[in-house]
Amino acid sequence: MDLIIKNGTIVTPLESYVADLAVKGGKIVAIGTGFSEEGASVVDAKGKLILPGAIDAHTHLAMPFGGTVSADSYLAGTRAAACGGVTTVFDYPMQRKGNGIIETIETRKEMCDPEACVDYAFHCIITDLNEGTILDEFEDAVEYGVPSFKCFLVYKKEGMMVDDATLVKILLKAKETGAMTNIHAENPDLIDLNIENFLKEGKTSAWYHYLSRPEFVEAEADKRAVHLAKSIGAPLYLVHMADKEGLETAIEAKREGHDIYVETCPQYLEFTCDVYKREDGRNFVCSPPMKGQESQDALWKAIKSGDIDTVATDHCPFQSYEKDWGKDDFTKIPNGCAGVENLYPYMLSAANEGKITFNRAVELCSFNPAKIFGCTEKGSLTVGKDADIVIYDPNKDFTISVENMHSDYDHTIWEGKTLHGYPVQTYVRGNLVYDNGEFVGKAGFGQFVKRVGRK
Amino acid sequence: MDLIIKNGTIVTPLESYVADLAVKGGKIVAIGTGFSEEGASVVDAKGKLILPGAIDAHTHLAMPFGGTVSADSYLAGTRAAACGGVTTVFDYPMQRKGNGIIETIETRKEMCDPEACVDYAFHCIITDLNEGTILDEFEDAVEYGVPSFKCFLVYKKEGMMVDDATLVKILLKAKETGAMTNIHAENPDLIDLNIENFLKEGKTSAWYHYLSRPEFVEAEADKRAVHLAKSIGAPLYLVHMADKEGLETAIEAKREGHDIYVETCPQYLEFTCDVYKREDGRNFVCSPPMKGQESQDALWKAIKSGDIDTVATDHCPFQSYEKDWGKDDFTKIPNGCAGVENLYPYMLSAANEGKITFNRAVELCSFNPAKIFGCTEKGSLTVGKDADIVIYDPNKDFTISVENMHSDYDHTIWEGKTLHGYPVQTYVRGNLVYDNGEFVGKAGFGQFVKRVGRK
Amino acid sequence: MDLIIKNGTIVTPLESYVADLAVKGGKIVAIGTGFSEEGASVVDAKGKLILPGAIDAHTHLAMPFGGTVSADSYLAGTRAAACGGVTTVFDYPMQRKGNGIIETIETRKEMCDPEACVDYAFHCIITDLNEGTILDEFEDAVEYGVPSFKCFLVYKKEGMMVDDATLVKILLKAKETGAMTNIHAENPDLIDLNIENFLKEGKTSAWYHYLSRPEFVEAEADKRAVHLAKSIGAPLYLVHMADKEGLETAIEAKREGHDIYVETCPQYLEFTCDVYKREDGRNFVCSPPMKGQESQDALWKAIKSGDIDTVATDHCPFQSYEKDWGKDDFTKIPNGCAGVENLYPYMLSAANEGKITFNRAVELCSFNPAKIFGCTEKGSLTVGKDADIVIYDPNKDFTISVENMHSDYDHTIWEGKTLHGYPVQTYVRGNLVYDNGEFVGKAGFGQFVKRVGRK
Amino acid sequence: MDLIIKNGTIVTPLESYVADLAVKGGKIVAIGTGFSEEGASVVDAKGKLILPGAIDAHTHLAMPFGGTVSADSYLAGTRAAACGGVTTVFDYPMQRKGNGIIETIETRKEMCDPEACVDYAFHCIITDLNEGTILDEFEDAVEYGVPSFKCFLVYKKEGMMVDDATLVKILLKAKETGAMTNIHAENPDLIDLNIENFLKEGKTSAWYHYLSRPEFVEAEADKRAVHLAKSIGAPLYLVHMADKEGLETAIEAKREGHDIYVETCPQYLEFTCDVYKREDGRNFVCSPPMKGQESQDALWKAIKSGDIDTVATDHCPFQSYEKDWGKDDFTKIPNGCAGVENLYPYMLSAANEGKITFNRAVELCSFNPAKIFGCTEKGSLTVGKDADIVIYDPNKDFTISVENMHSDYDHTIWEGKTLHGYPVQTYVRGNLVYDNGEFVGKAGFGQFVKRVGRK
Repeated sequence: MDLIIKNGTIVTPLESYVADLAVKGGKIVAIGTGFSEEGASVVDAKGKLILPGAIDAHTHLAMPFGGTVSADSYLAGTRAAACGGVTTVFDYPMQRKGNGIIETIETRKEMCDPEACVDYAFHCIITDLNEGTILDEFEDAVEYGVPSFKCFLVYKKEGMMVDDATLVKILLKAKETGAMTNIHAENPDLIDLNIENFLKEGKTSAWYHYLSRPEFVEAEADKRAVHLAKSIGAPLYLVHMADKEGLETAIEAKREGHDIYVETCPQYLEFTCDVYKREDGRNFVCSPPMKGQESQDALWKAIKSGDIDTVATDHCPFQSYEKDWGKDDFTKIPNGCAGVENLYPYMLSAANEGKITFNRAVELCSFNPAKIFGCTEKGSLTVGKDADIVIYDPNKDFTISVENMHSDYDHTIWEGKTLHGYPVQTYVRGNLVYDNGEFVGKAGFGQFVKRVGRK
Repeated sequence: MDLIIKNGTIVTPLESYVADLAVKGGKIVAIGTGFSEEGASVVDAKGKLILPGAIDAHTHLAMPFGGTVSADSYLAGTRAAACGGVTTVFDYPMQRKGNGIIETIETRKEMCDPEACVDYAFHCIITDLNEGTILDEFEDAVEYGVPSFKCFLVYKKEGMMVDDATLVKILLKAKETGAMTNIHAENPDLIDLNIENFLKEGKTSAWYHYLSRPEFVEAEADKRAVHLAKSIGAPLYLVHMADKEGLETAIEAKREGHDIYVETCPQYLEFTCDVYKREDGRNFVCSPPMKGQESQDALWKAIKSGDIDTVATDHCPFQSYEKDWGKDDFTKIPNGCAGVENLYPYMLSAANEGKITFNRAVELCSFNPAKIFGCTEKGSLTVGKDADIVIYDPNKDFTISVENMHSDYDHTIWEGKTLHGYPVQTYVRGNLVYDNGEFVGKAGFGQFVKRVGRK
Repeated sequence: MDLIIKNGTIVTPLESYVADLAVKGGKIVAIGTGFSEEGASVVDAKGKLILPGAIDAHTHLAMPFGGTVSADSYLAGTRAAACGGVTTVFDYPMQRKGNGIIETIETRKEMCDPEACVDYAFHCIITDLNEGTILDEFEDAVEYGVPSFKCFLVYKKEGMMVDDATLVKILLKAKETGAMTNIHAENPDLIDLNIENFLKEGKTSAWYHYLSRPEFVEAEADKRAVHLAKSIGAPLYLVHMADKEGLETAIEAKREGHDIYVETCPQYLEFTCDVYKREDGRNFVCSPPMKGQESQDALWKAIKSGDIDTVATDHCPFQSYEKDWGKDDFTKIPNGCAGVENLYPYMLSAANEGKITFNRAVELCSFNPAKIFGCTEKGSLTVGKDADIVIYDPNKDFTISVENMHSDYDHTIWEGKTLHGYPVQTYVRGNLVYDNGEFVGKAGFGQFVKRVGRK
Repeated sequence: MDLIIKNGTIVTPLESYVADLAVKGGKIVAIGTGFSEEGASVVDAKGKLILPGAIDAHTHLAMPFGGTVSADSYLAGTRAAACGGVTTVFDYPMQRKGNGIIETIETRKEMCDPEACVDYAFHCIITDLNEGTILDEFEDAVEYGVPSFKCFLVYKKEGMMVDDATLVKILLKAKETGAMTNIHAENPDLIDLNIENFLKEGKTSAWYHYLSRPEFVEAEADKRAVHLAKSIGAPLYLVHMADKEGLETAIEAKREGHDIYVETCPQYLEFTCDVYKREDGRNFVCSPPMKGQESQDALWKAIKSGDIDTVATDHCPFQSYEKDWGKDDFTKIPNGCAGVENLYPYMLSAANEGKITFNRAVELCSFNPAKIFGCTEKGSLTVGKDADIVIYDPNKDFTISVENMHSDYDHTIWEGKTLHGYPVQTYVRGNLVYDNGEFVGKAGFGQFVKRVGRK
């Protein structure tokens, strides 16, 4: 054996039990007791939880957006991931109009490969069908290991939106090729109308960011996306769900048996729209914005009931000076916040406090994203899978600060949040990359995760 | 008294009872017994039903559409109306881009006034906000007696569609001014996508008209319109509802207490999409198209339960030679069918056969449209209201044929349909305009109905 | 004409309009204008509303119950009715075990006939099938003019309850004979369990009356009754609905098209269970008890939406000394409160304040009970019907006090309630029985209402 | 190691993966690869599935019922269990009125101990509270390892029914002590009414067994039980759910977050009420009876969706001569059928045919019953748990016949049913008890499973 983690409590989505876990060649090779420790590193995890590494299914690294580029490079973002117990990040390469899918992916892969500290996968954002040739590339993309695409139903003026016909074409081709379609659902016409009115009336604070995209604006697009996916029988993954009405529509469709999945993010579980009334409200600006208490309650209810499938971060930080661009005009604030390092600690702390079980936290942050997106070697502590492991100390408290984070950004919306319990070690394919506060991995160790399509 | 109708059974939405009805100066002045017949025309209606004249809330007369003009002029259309027991027709003047509302209405009023054989009212179709000036005209329009507007969510390529932001502006302004917003709900992107695909594949028969706008295409727009109206608290009237899923969404919203109304048409109650497989399928082409049996069943269920508010016709006939333009390409078929003369006989025949009560037929075709659209002098046989009256013989059978209709069109989708019971006389404001098969009114007798807004 | 009421605003469930109303031989013979006043009493009702007399579908007069007899005799109860604008009362004769239906009815009819000041009808309470012979009598009862029966699902120990099998037998036979089954729904086992526990624990105040029959105890029986009626396709009328969950079950069944009707009472619309915490809480003891705010809100919502069909009173007053029997033991308080004189003024005052329309008040208190229970000559101001008329002054305020009521009871739960608007005259079959505060009718004038079955 | 099962595909509720499984001292001690085989029995399971032993949560062995005793003794029943891959059976000792719980359990334990071939657990049926002393025993029973009780809402005449008050007392005490309440839900009054009517009319064939307890008769009691459990916040386990309406009520409550569980049985998944029209219909008589196709479809839908929690058998066979007692009178047929040996093969065959996944079959038949009923050492192939293991050959076909079953009964409703895939070996705590068609265990080897309460 290369590594034996002893005496810890192994947590699966269904059970927690004490056993030793043995790793060889980057894989979990045995779980049980009485393993020979000869030649192995041995870690005693007594009193600790042994968890599968988290999979953050939603990040934007080095993302050109809002007239700048998101603050975390692939290096910084995956380093932060490692230090937060995330062993695989999904990034969202965005097709430039006219470009192909494989071209888009490979361009980003070249950027990412030398920098990645943990394993990484891609969803490809489609902005243009290139008169249909993009659809012809779906099969290749699945074959390549990228069986998931994303569409924006929003950002119409920005030229990133797809209309309903394009969405349907993508849903149908994705269904045919075994791919998943991820959707960012907000209604662009309503947002633009609201913004136009607010700017006319001189209403320019961050609070109007929320008011220009309130609950029903997101819900409209959620409902439309669910309706279309249901009607044509195509799978659908709704990213960063933040409103109650859209959530309930998705849940109802799931319960009818439709192949629909829902992601939410820690920021929607922790903050409400009230943050936009704060003086530093602009720092919390992301899209969709945080919503009212009723929506947050609905999200937690669905987290507990199992109706939400995944929690991911939409990690897309910007620097303070960039956020400041919108001090006097909320439309100039780059949209996005930090999160990749906080995801797993946040959800596990919620478990530690009894809001959910640790089993459920593991299911939301690791098992489900692996299953939904075809990461066949990831997502659970099962013999044969990659040894992506987090050792978690339920008794270690931790207060988040930009000082103890491992990204490149200069502030965080999570500043001052105290978590109960914290990861002490992270292993990617059996290699220690994070050790008790320190990043100990190295750039370029992370590998591209070749995923498997849905059929 | 000018007119006494004796011994008939008066039908209201709630009751049926035998009494005499007296008319003077075009108004109903008394209901009861023992009226002096001195100087009055006396009609003995023993064994007959005395009904309020029908109000067809949806017609398109002399309507420029599909590269031609709908076959019924104001004269022909209102003549047919009179002969079918319709004493008020609503026509849909359509704003040309750049024009104003009052301008649009008055242009059509000038055409209609000299021709109208029954009373008439207008809903104004809005296609362009003229940079907002149109919204400023809403109050004037309500004052003018036109407190209802219509938007197309479809006909994008044709330049008639409004986008979601425009729809919301209209809904809000209508709410503010006490007007109603009527919506034609179908999803244009999906239709255009389907059409594009079918034409590419050489699928050009009328059957593909249906397949290009199937149930879920209509339902998407129904749901979106209901969502937006609910979210902003504005009243909404969905015209020509034809699909189950959209209907159920609207019913649910109504039951939650939202100010939402649903219209359907006789063609959706009688025919299913199977008609498009017939050799003369093109003659049945209208939008939305007839749907499957499940939708028809849902419509009848809602007719019976009271969840549908009105039945109107979407009367918009085209001549055979025009329909023939689309013999080899369904996209070239002018959309629309005849119906104004069939509405009331069809619904009353359904009552006569026991599917619904006569009370309900009267509510759907007369009381409700009057109430929803502010025709304060119309819609019921009540003292003080206009003497718009139909005498109906429940024992007279009638088989519809283009030969015995009173329009200008040269064919009808209702050809051969046998009805049980038929109107024998129609009075508009106390004047006989239809008498046992013959039109006996005259052009120009019909008056513009100045309606009252919702507050 | 015998009587002409001029210039008033006639209110129907659908419309309000100004007209004169003419009466002859106890019937409404004409509505309109220009009637000859020769030989007629003429009443000028300018500024007043002309309403159909209310029908209180639920009273218990001279009712033996709780070891005594309810405080209002037929004389006192119907006198109070007249003074509250109620022109027909339904009383509930209760079968003594072993007795027949006609026997039960006739016994009470003999008591009532000489005393009745307004018209009266009977529902017969069934407590015992007499080995089935009672079921054989249903057809006779319908023929006799009593096409409605009542079952208690409660009062098991008191020997009045029917079990589920008996209920089903009654529902089936009622369906077969065109009769309606009225149900008092509460779960006796749960009540008895609660009472047993409370008495053991020395919890004896009126508050424990409520706690022994809280929301879910009523809801259980509501749901069971609805389930059984739905399952066998029999009509059902739920009396005095007081809880949200049961109400919602009934509404859902109604919307599915089942023949189910819901009655509530003014006391549930006005008071919540908090009254049982008052020192005089025992005076408010009735069964079912008033419930929490959520249930009251649900009742009002259904009043407004039309989902509740009727409002009636469950009038069953007891004297203070009788209520005092339960000062130290809530189980000894006779169950029941006064209401017949307050029903119509209460609901009309709600209309006057804008909570509902006058049309809806008239529908709930007059039109619907007449229709549901086959009072073919009652329930609306329509030519040919009985001239049961109330003239209502919307500008007259009135504060309820036992001093200005016309019953025999010595206190009222409505003491001090101020109403806006009040009846000024009541006519039964054209005869004035109440005139501006004074009872002016006479005992024995009231007639038995021979009702018509459902087929 | 004592035993190594090599190369098989291990199936959990979430995953399937190839690994070796090592057993020592009756426990699973390791899963993985590369285990030393020294001193161990080694089984090569290549191409086979390795499954957790099934837990049949519902059997009646040596059960006195219907004037006789069910045909399978503890020996025969547990022998059959072993041969069907069931490694734990739950039996239902029934309290005789007046007796205590521990007394009831121990009496049956004494019978079972020397005979049991697989492990066994008890739910105790409560028929009488003995004036409350039974409730005082709940805590002891939980402590004893029997944290689950059962109530009949049916069998009123037979003296086994509990009324609603008793049910609530039991639910509350069970909640308080961490026990589960199992409910057999049918409405006794309705059944007795139907039976009375049918017997009067000479309708005595097995078909009338179904018609005396049709869908709505079961649904009434399901709904009542769910209502009561919800209202007081107590956990509830509905045994042998067989009807759609009751199932949907339970599912709705589960989704609202109530602690409610649903069991169904293979007979309801395989047969409909049509079997009662067969000449041998009496052999299929059990209660509740098989229902119509719509109910069966709803059951399968819920099996697939995860809304049904467990599948168990209600195993309670009678001999042909006993079934014959009811040849001419369905009320004389002993209620019950065989099943314990068919449960797992049936559900696994459904998986093999693609109706469900093997993961789901394992969840329904093993993981969930263990979790719901506190069998902490059972229910999954996890290190540390009892080595209750089934080796399953997905390629072995098997046709059920009374000849190849291992019970004492002389006929089976499953006669002739062909299954695709079949168990080849069963291990209880590491001991082989079934080997390829032969029972190889021994009486008395089975142990009492001391279970753990819910808190």
